[in-house]
Amino acid sequence: MSQFEDQQLLHRRQKVLGSSTPLFYDRPLQLLRGEGAWVFDADGRRYLDAYNNVPHVGHCHPHVVDAMCRQAREININTRYLHPLIVELGERLTATFDDPLDVVAFTCTGTEANELAIRIARTHTGNQGLIVSDWNYHGHSITLAGATTALPAPEAMARHARTFAVPDMSRGVSAQASLAQLEQAIASLKESGHGVAAMLVDTIFSSEGLPDVPAGWLNSAMEMVHKAGGLLIADEVQPGFGRTGEGMWGYRVHGLIPDIVTMGKPMGNGHPIAATVTTRALLESFGQQSLYFNTFGGNPVSAAVGLAVLDVIEQEGLIAHARVAGAYAIRRLNAIIGRHPVIKQMRGRGLFFGLEMVDPVTGEPASAEARRVVNRMRDEGVLLSRIGHDDNILKIRPPMAFGCEHADFLIERLDKVLGEAR
Amino acid sequence: MSQFEDQQLLHRRQKVLGSSTPLFYDRPLQLLRGEGAWVFDADGRRYLDAYNNVPHVGHCHPHVVDAMCRQAREININTRYLHPLIVELGERLTATFDDPLDVVAFTCTGTEANELAIRIARTHTGNQGLIVSDWNYHGHSITLAGATTALPAPEAMARHARTFAVPDMSRGVSAQASLAQLEQAIASLKESGHGVAAMLVDTIFSSEGLPDVPAGWLNSAMEMVHKAGGLLIADEVQPGFGRTGEGMWGYRVHGLIPDIVTMGKPMGNGHPIAATVTTRALLESFGQQSLYFNTFGGNPVSAAVGLAVLDVIEQEGLIAHARVAGAYAIRRLNAIIGRHPVIKQMRGRGLFFGLEMVDPVTGEPASAEARRVVNRMRDEGVLLSRIGHDDNILKIRPPMAFGCEHADFLIERLDKVLGEAR
Repeated sequence: MSQFEDQQLLHRRQKVLGSSTPLFYDRPLQLLRGEGAWVFDADGRRYLDAYNNVPHVGHCHPHVVDAMCRQAREININTRYLHPLIVELGERLTATFDDPLDVVAFTCTGTEANELAIRIARTHTGNQGLIVSDWNYHGHSITLAGATTALPAPEAMARHARTFAVPDMSRGVSAQASLAQLEQAIASLKESGHGVAAMLVDTIFSSEGLPDVPAGWLNSAMEMVHKAGGLLIADEVQPGFGRTGEGMWGYRVHGLIPDIVTMGKPMGNGHPIAATVTTRALLESFGQQSLYFNTFGGNPVSAAVGLAVLDVIEQEGLIAHARVAGAYAIRRLNAIIGRHPVIKQMRGRGLFFGLEMVDPVTGEPASAEARRVVNRMRDEGVLLSRIGHDDNILKIRPPMAFGCEHADFLIERLDKVLGEAR
Repeated sequence: MSQFEDQQLLHRRQKVLGSSTPLFYDRPLQLLRGEGAWVFDADGRRYLDAYNNVPHVGHCHPHVVDAMCRQAREININTRYLHPLIVELGERLTATFDDPLDVVAFTCTGTEANELAIRIARTHTGNQGLIVSDWNYHGHSITLAGATTALPAPEAMARHARTFAVPDMSRGVSAQASLAQLEQAIASLKESGHGVAAMLVDTIFSSEGLPDVPAGWLNSAMEMVHKAGGLLIADEVQPGFGRTGEGMWGYRVHGLIPDIVTMGKPMGNGHPIAATVTTRALLESFGQQSLYFNTFGGNPVSAAVGLAVLDVIEQEGLIAHARVAGAYAIRRLNAIIGRHPVIKQMRGRGLFFGLEMVDPVTGEPASAEARRVVNRMRDEGVLLSRIGHDDNILKIRPPMAFGCEHADFLIERLDKVLGEAR
């Protein structure tokens, strides 16, 4: 595929999808095939995928694809009829949660899962207020866009939303300062009459740049929210399904149990399936006042896919793998970091890493250099991206099929590309 | 599969999904296989599917399943990389619309498509107000639940939402009365400071019971909304993809061109894909202020499925088929209606019919009798449902694979079941 043909496709794309539909890279990349942790462009050139968490158990994993195709030839129908697969998936999934998180509602996307979680919280608490971090992304619906801070949105911050900073010593935010901001957010929501329905947080704070928050801080935050009458919603779209290497769900890292948990992206290895898990009491109290029905959510094909993803995580031991391969990658990354003063700090756990880039002279976020590195790494055959308030943290979040040999491939090239700037 | 085994599955289901997750029928039905217009239960007993519009081109259509499986083995990745299939689907889909509706944004569900449409309308108009019918269903997000009237929802009618009745002489609502209510809704939104962002309507008014609205009425309504600074959003989740037999989109029946069109359910024959189609000017004005990104929306597998559905509609001539088979069913239904005074009126076009049931003595909606008929028809091997303000209108909305022989099967049994009440 020539550069010219890519340009033609890009032109056609902009014509029919509009010019603002986002694309990665200064020079967009056409990807036509995927396998494990690798993707291939139109010329058959391979790239190590160190970015995409949606193909969670590996691109085009045959066990998942086979399960989908087998079920799609049998029946695909909504959940107002009985079918064993939605029940099996519900049982398998809730078994991975701590009591009393034992019921689930299926949706198609993380956005829908968060919308439902907020509806449940509002119905149960009778309050309307929503507390989120000051650099969050939880979805693209009207309500979530009205509380988004990490992406441009035409919506003003909704009147029922308040933000607070999560602890991050790189930004000078201590746990104490974070809790003081949370206290202020709660007070403000009480004053405005909204009250606190929920605090909604990504339990590893991905958009925020993976800050290593102090032990006990989120527990204190949850206590404050509970005391104000609100619930804790853990958005596990990023850390969920074993990515941290420390169990299936990111909330466990904090040693607490949220009131509601939402999940999406990795759940179907690319197939649109997501879910809201909560307690029986919360779901029933919502169900008594509402007829919630999601046309595609939990259909037999989606359920077969969800079950197959759980199979692979279990059969291939992917949680332990994330721990081992992640620890290996961190050791090797640490070994090269000393050579590159632009890397201030490495963050992350399991198979999710953030390399904070800061100008060693001025101390300012090295956002432009991070952008250069992302684009150059693509030339070198590695896909990664950026996160954080200043887009200066390299985001490395590969499919869970990413192993030590892939880490070597990545780190060798990263060492080279970082070295070019000196 | 014994009754007992169904009961066991139901019990497990209620345990893990909660007791409020909706099911059809007084005695739930387990469906394990589908083909064309037929579905099969756990004992292999077949049912004529005269209800489900999601398996639009027929249950498990091999062309659609094959396309999905083929692409799922190649790559399934988000749309921030270039891929030809999303562009092809965008081009094929927008080609079915009238100018200037020539750009599309892909989502996963009709709910997401309507959320995006409202975001676009609000950004463009600078207004917040939403006008919907007084018996509508457009989705399950917070914003849409706050404007829903046809389903129980814990949310009060949102402060920015107003309703009006669509013309329906069965309910004593003339076109003039409807427009007077719309005028009042517009005035009220102006007075409250919200202004009019959009009027959102299903162009065949499915939840409302398929009233045969007078020619020109929706055009007048659109003019009033435009004059107030708002846009018309046509929700084509029900009429779209040829169901009316009069072209691909329901709005054509009214001889107008909406500002934004949303679609969902039938688009992927069960696979979660949906879309918002609008004008370049509207999408670009939204895109300038927003980074809208839908993780699963428009991925290569979803796009392959969407293209395959368009292929089948075209290759099997399903729009003409809906017209012909629909006209045949209406002729045959008319022939039996005279025998059953409980049927007051038949409504519908193409392959979507509503049979209004009214007590011939009291003139009251025969809701209980409609419920009995739906449950008895299931015993007789036919799936259908109910719509309308009083749930007294039989809803017949089969997959487009429904032909004259299926109409015969349905009508013979309906004649029998209706006769039992006499």
